[in-house]
Amino acid sequence: MQTIQNSPLYHITHPNHVVVIGASNNMLTMGTPLLNNMLSLGFKGTVYPVHPKLREVLGLKAYSNIKDISVVPDLALIVVPTRIVSQVLQACGEKGIRHAIIVSGGFRESGENGMHRERELVEIAKHYGIRFIGPNCLGVVNPFHQFNSTISHYNASMEGFIGMVSQSGSFITQIFVHLEKFGLGFSQGLSIGNQADIDMADCVEYLGACERTKVIGLYVEGLTRPKKFIRIAKEVSKNKPIVAMYVGGTEAGSRASLSHTGALSGSDAIYKGVFRQCGIVRAYSIEELFDFCWALGTQPLMQGNRVVVFTHSGGPGAAAADAADRAGLKLPPLSAETKEKLRNLVPHTGSINNPIDLTFTRNIENLMVHIPRALLEDEDLNGILMYFLTLTETYKRLLDKVESPPFNTIEEYEEYMYGLYLRFVKLVKSHNKPLLGSSFLMRNERLIGELEDLGIPILPSPERSARAMGALYRYSKMRKALVELFSH
Amino acid sequence: MQTIQNSPLYHITHPNHVVVIGASNNMLTMGTPLLNNMLSLGFKGTVYPVHPKLREVLGLKAYSNIKDISVVPDLALIVVPTRIVSQVLQACGEKGIRHAIIVSGGFRESGENGMHRERELVEIAKHYGIRFIGPNCLGVVNPFHQFNSTISHYNASMEGFIGMVSQSGSFITQIFVHLEKFGLGFSQGLSIGNQADIDMADCVEYLGACERTKVIGLYVEGLTRPKKFIRIAKEVSKNKPIVAMYVGGTEAGSRASLSHTGALSGSDAIYKGVFRQCGIVRAYSIEELFDFCWALGTQPLMQGNRVVVFTHSGGPGAAAADAADRAGLKLPPLSAETKEKLRNLVPHTGSINNPIDLTFTRNIENLMVHIPRALLEDEDLNGILMYFLTLTETYKRLLDKVESPPFNTIEEYEEYMYGLYLRFVKLVKSHNKPLLGSSFLMRNERLIGELEDLGIPILPSPERSARAMGALYRYSKMRKALVELFSH
Repeated sequence: MQTIQNSPLYHITHPNHVVVIGASNNMLTMGTPLLNNMLSLGFKGTVYPVHPKLREVLGLKAYSNIKDISVVPDLALIVVPTRIVSQVLQACGEKGIRHAIIVSGGFRESGENGMHRERELVEIAKHYGIRFIGPNCLGVVNPFHQFNSTISHYNASMEGFIGMVSQSGSFITQIFVHLEKFGLGFSQGLSIGNQADIDMADCVEYLGACERTKVIGLYVEGLTRPKKFIRIAKEVSKNKPIVAMYVGGTEAGSRASLSHTGALSGSDAIYKGVFRQCGIVRAYSIEELFDFCWALGTQPLMQGNRVVVFTHSGGPGAAAADAADRAGLKLPPLSAETKEKLRNLVPHTGSINNPIDLTFTRNIENLMVHIPRALLEDEDLNGILMYFLTLTETYKRLLDKVESPPFNTIEEYEEYMYGLYLRFVKLVKSHNKPLLGSSFLMRNERLIGELEDLGIPILPSPERSARAMGALYRYSKMRKALVELFSH
Repeated sequence: MQTIQNSPLYHITHPNHVVVIGASNNMLTMGTPLLNNMLSLGFKGTVYPVHPKLREVLGLKAYSNIKDISVVPDLALIVVPTRIVSQVLQACGEKGIRHAIIVSGGFRESGENGMHRERELVEIAKHYGIRFIGPNCLGVVNPFHQFNSTISHYNASMEGFIGMVSQSGSFITQIFVHLEKFGLGFSQGLSIGNQADIDMADCVEYLGACERTKVIGLYVEGLTRPKKFIRIAKEVSKNKPIVAMYVGGTEAGSRASLSHTGALSGSDAIYKGVFRQCGIVRAYSIEELFDFCWALGTQPLMQGNRVVVFTHSGGPGAAAADAADRAGLKLPPLSAETKEKLRNLVPHTGSINNPIDLTFTRNIENLMVHIPRALLEDEDLNGILMYFLTLTETYKRLLDKVESPPFNTIEEYEEYMYGLYLRFVKLVKSHNKPLLGSSFLMRNERLIGELEDLGIPILPSPERSARAMGALYRYSKMRKALVELFSH
């Protein structure tokens, strides 16, 4: 790949004229919701539905034959019954179309006959020079091009930095609601299905070159071309973190993968070795995969494994400390210099060990500005885990019942906090040190949403923030080794 | 403990006359939000605020001295500065009060002098026959008595089945918002702080006898009286599951625990042994603790480790399979008889291996009733993991754009689904077999909330449902061993 525009994936994710074969006005036809989701994200290009009988599909002019379209579409979305997929692909080829997404299933994943049908597809594609994703996939979502070919509606505000490649369509589609919980989104989401033509390695190469993509997430059931994958992943992860969840390493997971995408999985140990070789961080669940992507896609590298836990609640602090230790991190005692700085900032009932535990404090400026500054400045510390709580709920219930409250209204409190958050975030970003937050509150608490939108990841529990920091450390270490290796 | 009414904890969680010492009309005084939360949950008893100067506190008549109260309160809530705690406790004793919650900190957790102050408290309590929780705690919440003494507002609809005992106040209070995400709640929540008098073992014994409590959750930094704890926990877990998170087993966690509650922790291996001996299931995060409580508090025991994964989405199925395997469960191939039953219920593009993967189906009755029945009836299977998705969002965006939609309105779809859910839940409850659901959708999706309210746990990811099933299996096995041991 010389430039990103050379990649067939660039064309598949940035089309201008899309022919959709298989949508109708019947919602139980799979192509119908796909076309509808393409329209609902606000696609700016032209869509040409093809249908043998209908003259209009979801309000768009329909064509009875691909030949009848006045331009040569730059992408075909094929969602037709298994038995006519090859015939449709051939018609696309004859029209001069060179890129396709084949959603239809019933190929390699369904046994011997399916395998034969899949080979036929590949031959047709080769003959016409068509590059395609699938079959048995859900296509792609590219929020930056307002393009979504999948079965789930994508929220236009979810322009994100995670480039995801998945052998399961669900983790590109049903996962939208999971990302929304955290204000995250895809830079590009690629459901690759059976990988008959374009494979995971191609996607990693493409996302490696995609500027919007800050981190690459992979859901792996089994690698089809491992050598190629290793070569490309090694190169990409020198510059951009890759996080992978692999489910084929257990007996049950391997069987599930085989009947799902016909993937040939390998032992857990082999994949562990492959991932390590490539500098890929492994996650053990989809939640963890996105937690790790959040951390690795937003935070600077860690220079070492020494972290500080900063909290105003002892339990979450201890839980973070325990989880950090299990994730390969160290919580060193603080230096005399930092302790000196903290002495007047932490109440006497608190603790300036590591964790730093404020317990109850009235001074929110110490919490949000002065203590973080002392920790960011301490060169002995490589990362900060910070636990967040807001007083919105308490204030809501008390403001009009007490004498001389610190704020007259909730809005006043929220504005004050937002002002502190701006100072806090500026401070954090002026230092080259990772900071991960956690809270049991979610984005529906306005202040948490604002912190996240300012670029501070707030993981939904202290343990998850600690594990994500552990992942960041593992990646930082592997990347350093890879870069050194390549520099000789 | 002969009857539950003998337990001091019964009196502490079911008071009728509560004296609150330390609340004011200043919201920065810690006692103020505590008193406010007590009132906001709708406490039916009488509250007597005591304050040296104020004549009214949060709208209630205030007393300048405990002596002036016309009745003998059955509980004192003490939230005053460290130096006057013992003096206040003494006044309570003189008044004839026999139960107290001491919220104030500055005792054993803060070193030598604090240790001395704590011993003084214990002596005063002994002298007057006072039983107390704390110091350095956040007290209790008992939604069934509309009683909340803590720093966080409790939502009255959250009457639950989880009895929680915690050395961290946060995991009794800041965790309310976490429970709400899943429609869960406490039967009783007990923040025990330094355990100077009432300890974790007492709490386990009390919750063991509490009928509303179906499962006991523990957050442990270090056991103070291990022998007593083992004796009681062993006895309780024969009848009621206990789940524990222990954070003192790592170097960092141990240090954090010491400065938090002055707890003396022990090695991970020792606690592992203690938990196993007692039949306690261990969790490695607070999220996991509540996941496990949800499963263990609602599901029947597992007769073996053979589970089936049932899904209409391949990826979540494979992820559940992989996680189940890692959690000590087996996914056996299905019996010929069950396969025969499934053959006409699963589309040809789906799979009747284990996982059973429907892929795309139009027949929701097969999904919700007929397939579950076949799996519940199969005696070779000990548990079911089921992945859920709803079509609400798809329907919302398509209903008015397509021809002859299967439902005319969203409400019609939701009603139809609810009807199926009722049949599904009746079916599940008529079999003695655990079933755990999962979905990336949360309770804000009405249908997911309804399923949860009908008693089906819907964990927020396939992997978490699999791990919770693993915990249920471990408990079932330990319980069987314990019961056998005691029967000899």
